[in-house]
Amino acid sequence: TSPSEPIRATLFPGDGIGPEIAESVKKVFNVAQIPIEWEEHFVGDKVDPRTESFLTWESLESVRRNRVGLKGPMATPIGKGHRSLNLTLRKELGLYANVRPCYSLPGYKTRYDNVNLVTIRENTEGEYSGLEHQVVRGVVESLKIITRQASLRVAEYAFHYAKANGRQRVSAIHKANIMRKTDGLFLKCCREVAEKYPEITYEEVIIDNCCMMLVRNPSLFDVLVMPNLYGDIISDLCAGLIGGLGLTPSCNIGEHGIALAEAVHGSAPDIAGKNLANPTALLLSSVMMLRHLNLNDKADQIHNAILNTISEGKYRTVDLGGSSSTTDFTKAVCDHL
Amino acid sequence: TSPSEPIRATLFPGDGIGPEIAESVKKVFNVAQIPIEWEEHFVGDKVDPRTESFLTWESLESVRRNRVGLKGPMATPIGKGHRSLNLTLRKELGLYANVRPCYSLPGYKTRYDNVNLVTIRENTEGEYSGLEHQVVRGVVESLKIITRQASLRVAEYAFHYAKANGRQRVSAIHKANIMRKTDGLFLKCCREVAEKYPEITYEEVIIDNCCMMLVRNPSLFDVLVMPNLYGDIISDLCAGLIGGLGLTPSCNIGEHGIALAEAVHGSAPDIAGKNLANPTALLLSSVMMLRHLNLNDKADQIHNAILNTISEGKYRTVDLGGSSSTTDFTKAVCDHL
Ligand SMILES: CC(C)[C@H](C(=O)O)[C@@H](O)C(=O)O
Ligand SMILES: CC(C)[C@H](C(=O)O)[C@@H](O)C(=O)O
Repeated sequence: TSPSEPIRATLFPGDGIGPEIAESVKKVFNVAQIPIEWEEHFVGDKVDPRTESFLTWESLESVRRNRVGLKGPMATPIGKGHRSLNLTLRKELGLYANVRPCYSLPGYKTRYDNVNLVTIRENTEGEYSGLEHQVVRGVVESLKIITRQASLRVAEYAFHYAKANGRQRVSAIHKANIMRKTDGLFLKCCREVAEKYPEITYEEVIIDNCCMMLVRNPSLFDVLVMPNLYGDIISDLCAGLIGGLGLTPSCNIGEHGIALAEAVHGSAPDIAGKNLANPTALLLSSVMMLRHLNLNDKADQIHNAILNTISEGKYRTVDLGGSSSTTDFTKAVCDHL
Repeated sequence: TSPSEPIRATLFPGDGIGPEIAESVKKVFNVAQIPIEWEEHFVGDKVDPRTESFLTWESLESVRRNRVGLKGPMATPIGKGHRSLNLTLRKELGLYANVRPCYSLPGYKTRYDNVNLVTIRENTEGEYSGLEHQVVRGVVESLKIITRQASLRVAEYAFHYAKANGRQRVSAIHKANIMRKTDGLFLKCCREVAEKYPEITYEEVIIDNCCMMLVRNPSLFDVLVMPNLYGDIISDLCAGLIGGLGLTPSCNIGEHGIALAEAVHGSAPDIAGKNLANPTALLLSSVMMLRHLNLNDKADQIHNAILNTISEGKYRTVDLGGSSSTTDFTKAVCDHL
């Protein structure tokens, strides 16, 4: 690839407010002259037999080919017995780690002003196995599956991430005092990887205690790595500390070097199409995508423009107590570029 | 029983700081002239074959006979392959609900000043089944078991508690979008019970969202009921909101009308025997025990004395940033009686 050839990336605008916030990213990328050409894919309106879901085969092929993408919220049609779109994406693309940096935004005040941590969630197994049985009437069971392979993979990623980003410590979150075998195996894998990173402090924290520590003093944590459900819970808890899912970016790391950045908030159908949505989470996710592509200067530029717009406080969307529209906020970010 | 005959209650001082904080309760009860006679039981120093743990058979018999008790922290000897003392108690006494009122203490400032909720945790099954297997090398599974019987029982208790205590709302916390069968059954049972309490508002909240809401605005919640592990996590998170486990009481409700009040913090071996422990959680737990016995005037007296001591701020133990000893703090509570 010659330096002038654009990078192709897949874009899933998603449902509800998705298209509006995706528009915001496209506008900002244009102004910042990011050399990216989007392959836009929408969720289909019928089940594609090749994906067994409303996701089209072509859209998955696009991510596999480009190895990089950005995703807005996807609402899974309820009660139709079809696979969740988010879970299907994780499975089909082997998105084994969900990475969520969570930091206090200067200028947006919450009860906490010292949050600066990253949650890394195992994203493919654990309590999400989908294996459930009725044993006898009135007695049901769910299987939590932990494998050495997936645990090592996410632990490797967590330590690699910590080192690459100048982080000092990795905390493995668990409940191995109760689930000795499953969470025990997870910890064992983390310990094995930790040995290869003597410069990173490794610790293990029981999940109940971790949640108590997080609400009392989140600055006790740096990088957290954990099985699927604990990651689901703790990453949302952490988002709450800094103002909610509208402000927190994420990126999913997958097999074959895939990175799919993702706004993890919902599709907010109540405000869809009204030019009211906050594009911050998707914009910050797109910055994570740029860093993955090593476009660090561009990433810094956009990141600073977003943070400056928020801290200036003049343009704030409704969810943050302001009255700016999506397009006003986006324009302000562009003006800061 | 004639009114002058004392009520017999079992007391487990427990390990570490346990005996010191139990002493504090005994002193306060004396001064308040509570008509209780304690049957004191310590954790044994060898396994009792009848309990398969370090708990003596006599101590369990004592709770079964008295149906009411108070428990300090118990440290399970590690790595000896014996059953956890806490889990054994829950199992042997059928302690099916762990109840934790969680409210901001006037005078003890945290980031939150509007907490007033109660978590009710199913305490016997779920992720604590102890059923784990290695499927093949590197693949392990844990079974989460949810039964209709235990779910109905804890749901009944939650609604009964809400009504008896003038609470307006019960929120069932779950992840039934992923664990459709297990958490789905739990929700089904909650819904069935909810129908019998039309005066109580019933809602269902997904656990990740619940944690985010709790850290953003805990006043959104009133009574929360949930499966075992979610209760473990959320009750500690809530304790964190108001200052930690040193300040939060709990009571376990068991079969045959048993109530075992319990300080859920650890045994703090580092400060044991040094007259430094904070007896607040055990004192507040003993107040829950008094309410269970319908000694409400006495309960109010002691409760107010504790709250006044804390809000006065003159006597504070080390964990709360003060320098008072356990006995100083206890004396202050007695003086407030
Ligand atoms: C929608 C749901 C299946 C999903 C999850 O539980 O993983 C969501 O909470 C998330 O964190 O992306
Ligand atoms: C010590 C541990 C087994 C226990 C639990 O997980 O139930 C503790 O966290 C609790 O909440 O009482």
